Amino acid sequence: MIYVTRKAHFNASHRLHNPNKSDEWNREIFGKCNNPNWHGHNYVIEVTVAGEADPETGYVIDLGKLKSIMKKRVLDPCDHKNLNLEVPFLKNVIPTSENLVKSFFTELQEDVDNAAYGSSKLYSVRLFETERNIAEYCPSRGE
Amino acid sequence: MIYVTRKAHFNASHRLHNPNKSDEWNREIFGKCNNPNWHGHNYVIEVTVAGEADPETGYVIDLGKLKSIMKKRVLDPCDHKNLNLEVPFLKNVIPTSENLVKSFFTELQEDVDNAAYGSSKLYSVRLFETERNIAEYCPSRGE
Amino acid sequence: MIYVTRKAHFNASHRLHNPNKSDEWNREIFGKCNNPNWHGHNYVIEVTVAGEADPETGYVIDLGKLKSIMKKRVLDPCDHKNLNLEVPFLKNVIPTSENLVKSFFTELQEDVDNAAYGSSKLYSVRLFETERNIAEYCPSRGE
Amino acid sequence: MIYVTRKAHFNASHRLHNPNKSDEWNREIFGKCNNPNWHGHNYVIEVTVAGEADPETGYVIDLGKLKSIMKKRVLDPCDHKNLNLEVPFLKNVIPTSENLVKSFFTELQEDVDNAAYGSSKLYSVRLFETERNIAEYCPSRGE
Amino acid sequence: MIYVTRKAHFNASHRLHNPNKSDEWNREIFGKCNNPNWHGHNYVIEVTVAGEADPETGYVIDLGKLKSIMKKRVLDPCDHKNLNLEVPFLKNVIPTSENLVKSFFTELQEDVDNAAYGSSKLYSVRLFETERNIAEYCPSRGE
Amino acid sequence: MIYVTRKAHFNASHRLHNPNKSDEWNREIFGKCNNPNWHGHNYVIEVTVAGEADPETGYVIDLGKLKSIMKKRVLDPCDHKNLNLEVPFLKNVIPTSENLVKSFFTELQEDVDNAAYGSSKLYSVRLFETERNIAEYCPSRGE
Repeated sequence: MIYVTRKAHFNASHRLHNPNKSDEWNREIFGKCNNPNWHGHNYVIEVTVAGEADPETGYVIDLGKLKSIMKKRVLDPCDHKNLNLEVPFLKNVIPTSENLVKSFFTELQEDVDNAAYGSSKLYSVRLFETERNIAEYCPSRGE
Repeated sequence: MIYVTRKAHFNASHRLHNPNKSDEWNREIFGKCNNPNWHGHNYVIEVTVAGEADPETGYVIDLGKLKSIMKKRVLDPCDHKNLNLEVPFLKNVIPTSENLVKSFFTELQEDVDNAAYGSSKLYSVRLFETERNIAEYCPSRGE
Repeated sequence: MIYVTRKAHFNASHRLHNPNKSDEWNREIFGKCNNPNWHGHNYVIEVTVAGEADPETGYVIDLGKLKSIMKKRVLDPCDHKNLNLEVPFLKNVIPTSENLVKSFFTELQEDVDNAAYGSSKLYSVRLFETERNIAEYCPSRGE
Repeated sequence: MIYVTRKAHFNASHRLHNPNKSDEWNREIFGKCNNPNWHGHNYVIEVTVAGEADPETGYVIDLGKLKSIMKKRVLDPCDHKNLNLEVPFLKNVIPTSENLVKSFFTELQEDVDNAAYGSSKLYSVRLFETERNIAEYCPSRGE
Repeated sequence: MIYVTRKAHFNASHRLHNPNKSDEWNREIFGKCNNPNWHGHNYVIEVTVAGEADPETGYVIDLGKLKSIMKKRVLDPCDHKNLNLEVPFLKNVIPTSENLVKSFFTELQEDVDNAAYGSSKLYSVRLFETERNIAEYCPSRGE
Repeated sequence: MIYVTRKAHFNASHRLHNPNKSDEWNREIFGKCNNPNWHGHNYVIEVTVAGEADPETGYVIDLGKLKSIMKKRVLDPCDHKNLNLEVPFLKNVIPTSENLVKSFFTELQEDVDNAAYGSSKLYSVRLFETERNIAEYCPSRGE
């Protein structure tokens, strides 16, 4: 099993807020991340594809193609945007890192699986909200 | 001459916008950084103090004290905040990295100069807006 | 399966020494790491929790709570300390990175599992002794 | 299960080219990576060994020995070399990151398994071609 | 005085060789860097512009414009290229980091000075050949 | 003016303590850094040489020679050592970062100046005690 990973960056604003709950609940649970005037991050995203390398190219996936898919599916919709207000696929999603990696995985999956060699496929999405806070979605690692 | 530097982090939202100009001008000049729904960054700030070390302590400045001053003057006002709306000392400042380092230097100067040993004093403030975009204000380095 | 990771730092002194063996054996096996006058490191620790996100908060674990648990269980006992002499839970442990990650995992497990959402639980502890030497304990990853 | 990792660096030139295919095919597939005058990278390699720690030493593997094995098997043959022309074990290998990690794993396996404690053994080889492009070979992680 | 810096990357092959000297002299002086089959690096370049910020934009220089100038003058000619054979402005230059920063400065100067605000101008070019080997050209910093 | 920098690492234990002062004074001033059982760091040192490049080699200084001088003068005496007890040139020096950079500069100066081309000479020594605490000694930079 070979794993190839491509890293990229985007900058965005967000706020953690559950609209089904009271303002008090939100302030209590999310603290300064609930600031109604927003805050933001330099997000780093790492997308990993797992499988076998094509013997003719030596590629599990052409990283140039993976870069384009990440740009189209994640960076263009999210970069310099407000994650709560402006990203269609994040509508009704509380933009914690946990929820973001799951949403990004869903957005990327079809294009990545089509571009990868043979039965190689999207394996995981990792997101650094800060250098110290990291989330990863990797459904196949599971139990 | 000895230089000591302390590094810290904060996350904030902002938007580049000159309210004295038209929306067209702002979109033309600032592009996606002008997004009215804000975007944000994990800012890294480096504060440098220059001078001589106290022979009794070996310190140009106690970095614990410098850390507290940076927290009080920059991190507490700016962390998880909207730099355009919520930071009193940035009122009427377009929050480019250039303007931020100058404003932070002004905010820090008196406390840092008082805490530093002898004639040691605040030398520069550096800000990483992203890993690739960096600004520094260093008035004494001169021509 | 979602994985969330929190990173932290501590500085400590240590020495590699097996008191059940001769000084010659220890010098032969541990080389300069056996220096009786100690040496030290800026340790970086990464703690990963695995599971599902709480639909109300979007959190596998509140990273603020994880930060507090890491502070109480690992950083407060170890930071600016001598790992051989001053950390109760490391008594009789040769402080190699391998043994440290296992001991840290044991110290963290109950509090982390209680703070994590639903059946989410502590998944791994990773320790960077230097940028180039890394150890990880991950009991559930299995064979 | 404990995992220990050692990181190292080497600089090399290479070119992506499949000699069984036409020049047109190679330019189309590999783009600027096919440049006949070569390009190069500062490669970062991470080698991970998995198993149990020796109770007498606290080591899964002596990282000094792992460092020597990596030097002998990978760094000496590859550092400041042309990966297409000068590395015997890469003859007939298109030097993509995917193929390199697999070849390095094969080169390292016997020596690492012999040096590791008990049934501990080589677990994975990871290669950073750039900060943004990463490949890993980890045969036992399986599906 | 405000300093703004933009960082970028390129990958290239090169060899250190003085064609006016014998092969023996070159092997003696440059060692493995003289390998006739080339080696290569992931170069990191940092370009710094110094001056005053435009009060209307808050910019010393629009970093988007600086990015374009760096792409046109340095990255497009050098990325995935052989620095000895393929870069017109490096003809007859031994591609040490020292010589590269000086050549890059000359290439960048006119465009950067024109794009910078008022009397702001190109201040320095820094190049990381590896994480551990760095060169900088900064003519105005003087003695 | 061209500046070339070489980076290196060492691990050491130390304690901040002024033996001419009372234990109370030391605990008050140095806090946890005064721990009598020592603590330690992964120090990163950057040595910069400034001057002109030799036209025959393109080198301000052969970085291989600079690496050897740093090894002989700083790394061999300090790596895996206790900076208070075991380093002859640090006898009677309180090992703050400020004092260390000054002592390292003195140790390195003669050998570096002799190895550098023409009138090129040692320019600065920078030390990262942690990622966040940095000191630099640069006597020629100015006021």
